[in-house]
Amino acid sequence: MTLSLDPAAQILAEAAQTDTPPVVEPEAPNGQGQVAQFGPDEPLTMDAGVVLAPFQIAYQTAGTLNADRSNAVLICHALTGDQHFAHTHPVTGKRGWWETLVGPGKPIDTDRYFVVCSNVVGSCMGSTGPASVDPETGRAYGLDFPLVTIRDMVRAQAMLLDRLGIRDLFLCIGGSMGGMQVLQWAALYPERVFAAMPIATGARHSAQNIAFHEVGRQAIMADPAWAEGRYLDMGTRPAKGLGVARMGAHITYLSEPALHRKFGRRFQGGSAPTFSFNADFQIESYLRHQGLSFVERFDANAYLYLTRAMDYFDLAADHGGVLAKAFKGTKTRFCVMSFTSDWLFPTADSRAIVHALNAASAAVAFVEVESDKGHDAFLLDEPVMFAAARGFIDAAARARGL
Amino acid sequence: MTLSLDPAAQILAEAAQTDTPPVVEPEAPNGQGQVAQFGPDEPLTMDAGVVLAPFQIAYQTAGTLNADRSNAVLICHALTGDQHFAHTHPVTGKRGWWETLVGPGKPIDTDRYFVVCSNVVGSCMGSTGPASVDPETGRAYGLDFPLVTIRDMVRAQAMLLDRLGIRDLFLCIGGSMGGMQVLQWAALYPERVFAAMPIATGARHSAQNIAFHEVGRQAIMADPAWAEGRYLDMGTRPAKGLGVARMGAHITYLSEPALHRKFGRRFQGGSAPTFSFNADFQIESYLRHQGLSFVERFDANAYLYLTRAMDYFDLAADHGGVLAKAFKGTKTRFCVMSFTSDWLFPTADSRAIVHALNAASAAVAFVEVESDKGHDAFLLDEPVMFAAARGFIDAAARARGL
Repeated sequence: MTLSLDPAAQILAEAAQTDTPPVVEPEAPNGQGQVAQFGPDEPLTMDAGVVLAPFQIAYQTAGTLNADRSNAVLICHALTGDQHFAHTHPVTGKRGWWETLVGPGKPIDTDRYFVVCSNVVGSCMGSTGPASVDPETGRAYGLDFPLVTIRDMVRAQAMLLDRLGIRDLFLCIGGSMGGMQVLQWAALYPERVFAAMPIATGARHSAQNIAFHEVGRQAIMADPAWAEGRYLDMGTRPAKGLGVARMGAHITYLSEPALHRKFGRRFQGGSAPTFSFNADFQIESYLRHQGLSFVERFDANAYLYLTRAMDYFDLAADHGGVLAKAFKGTKTRFCVMSFTSDWLFPTADSRAIVHALNAASAAVAFVEVESDKGHDAFLLDEPVMFAAARGFIDAAARARGL
Repeated sequence: MTLSLDPAAQILAEAAQTDTPPVVEPEAPNGQGQVAQFGPDEPLTMDAGVVLAPFQIAYQTAGTLNADRSNAVLICHALTGDQHFAHTHPVTGKRGWWETLVGPGKPIDTDRYFVVCSNVVGSCMGSTGPASVDPETGRAYGLDFPLVTIRDMVRAQAMLLDRLGIRDLFLCIGGSMGGMQVLQWAALYPERVFAAMPIATGARHSAQNIAFHEVGRQAIMADPAWAEGRYLDMGTRPAKGLGVARMGAHITYLSEPALHRKFGRRFQGGSAPTFSFNADFQIESYLRHQGLSFVERFDANAYLYLTRAMDYFDLAADHGGVLAKAFKGTKTRFCVMSFTSDWLFPTADSRAIVHALNAASAAVAFVEVESDKGHDAFLLDEPVMFAAARGFIDAAARARGL
């Protein structure tokens, strides 16, 4: 049960057989995996109306690219996710965040597929973002970094795939913000996506979700240590503000039944309240821990940028207000998945995607998974999700002759 | 359509006819209504195991107490509510918060009933709370103020009613935290409550609700201007932290459909994003306004205390874990009301109350109002709520011979 974590040799081996010679990227020195550098001659054209150059994309891979390069899977990570889907996290030391779904013999079988996951542009795990050094000033970009959109993330991923010599994807898959990228991939590069699996996501962010994100941003910006975004220059970190933002967001990732089951009204180490503002309830202690641990692994400005990217996402608006037009003529086969207790991206959001795909005469399967785990169910042990993913992916593989 | 805002003369007129001479309280100098002072010989015994003395309770009244003092209604306000249910707010200049429900000819008819509403102990609108001066130090209490419970609030209200010469209530009514007080009244002083109407509330605070409150408290405490609760001494105010807390809480008071209907994804003054962290979306601007305006009228420490009181509330836990025991042998008639889109206190919470009342053989009506306005529906124009309240109150009045 070992993952092939170094596909570079394999890529090189295949290079002779194909048109585009893939480039072997160096390992990042900080454990963030491999890094693709894009120089001044390869800028990222961004929706904000600016070009970003130079920039870099950090990524991880597993499995081996086959001879005709037809078995590539792109995993798109969520808001605070990263490229370490099947690799130990360099900061937290935790196992890969999607090892439940990806690995030898798993639904995304690394014995069969070549799996890529890149840290999105605007994030802070090795790809260029607001914490990166602005070559023009020699300081961290901070708020001088251009606003990032989901489409910008997808464009950068496409450039990475070009670099890796991957023309088209067998499968593009992701949950939450990752699912937004999957939808954007299918809309922007339909000919490059054979199968798409957007999970626990929506084609646009709701007013309530924008509202929750805005509270998180205001919590960060209210922290004096944020220093108008220049905290890295000052050697400070808005840890309190970012912690509060994470605590609030974390509630939205769970369901009330899950919170009740896990914590209920149980007190910390006792059966009675202390009549103080200590973390009396277990749920309080848990949330505080979530806030503290998040601060250790994430950049506050990156959090501002990525939440904003999700807020701005509205695929229908990009197509005259008609979501079906985003998928017109698509040949991609879709599997849309939601979870019954997800109130951040409720099933209605997935149904809207399915209806649009139906209107576009696309091949689409829809699975609503019965789960009380809330939005985060897509990251957890959900056998029905695994079974449905396996069925969809296996069928797609047969259709592609894999 | 004028309210009788000065019942003091009427109370005096009735005094000769009854046993207990009611005390006429002075008007507070700051527009907070009347104030009942309780001296060192009349302490409030609190659940935290301390006694509070001296203390004061600010209150407002409307209507006229009848000769046999059988027509008194106690309105219990919500978390950030106050005694100005039918009176212009001294800070905001807004009309009374429940003038939709209370007034001449309204379901709580001030031509028929004598209506009292007091600012809860621990709050900041004239009743003693953490912003009050601690007579022992001459400074604001801050976190030296004892933790307050819903039961403490009710005990203080009972002392106020004693002062006003009101032995028992015709009706005790309130929403949200006000509903918790109604349930506590019925459990603690069943012989003093003829009819009770808890609205949009629960017999205990859920793990999710505790979680949301904890995020708000952490936002306040993260603000350096909070100064460990001593901000009044320092002449500062944790306005940013309190604003963030309010923004987050406000989302929970509304429903996603209501947010979608009112704001959707509409941009401020334009049809496109500005690619900045300005309040691009109308919902963002609205939330920021909610945060700012709240800071002007509310004390941050009081917010900590009152959220904590709600978190601690668990009526069943006070009765061996069996909610029905809280109402054993009650003669009070109940009307329990919920709103379909209230996800803070969902209908299931009300059903749990109704089941307990049924188990206690209490007289109980249950109304689930179809509304998309979320938790705050109880404060809004909801004709079905008004009609149900009128029906219940009129029937109770007939039963009481009013």
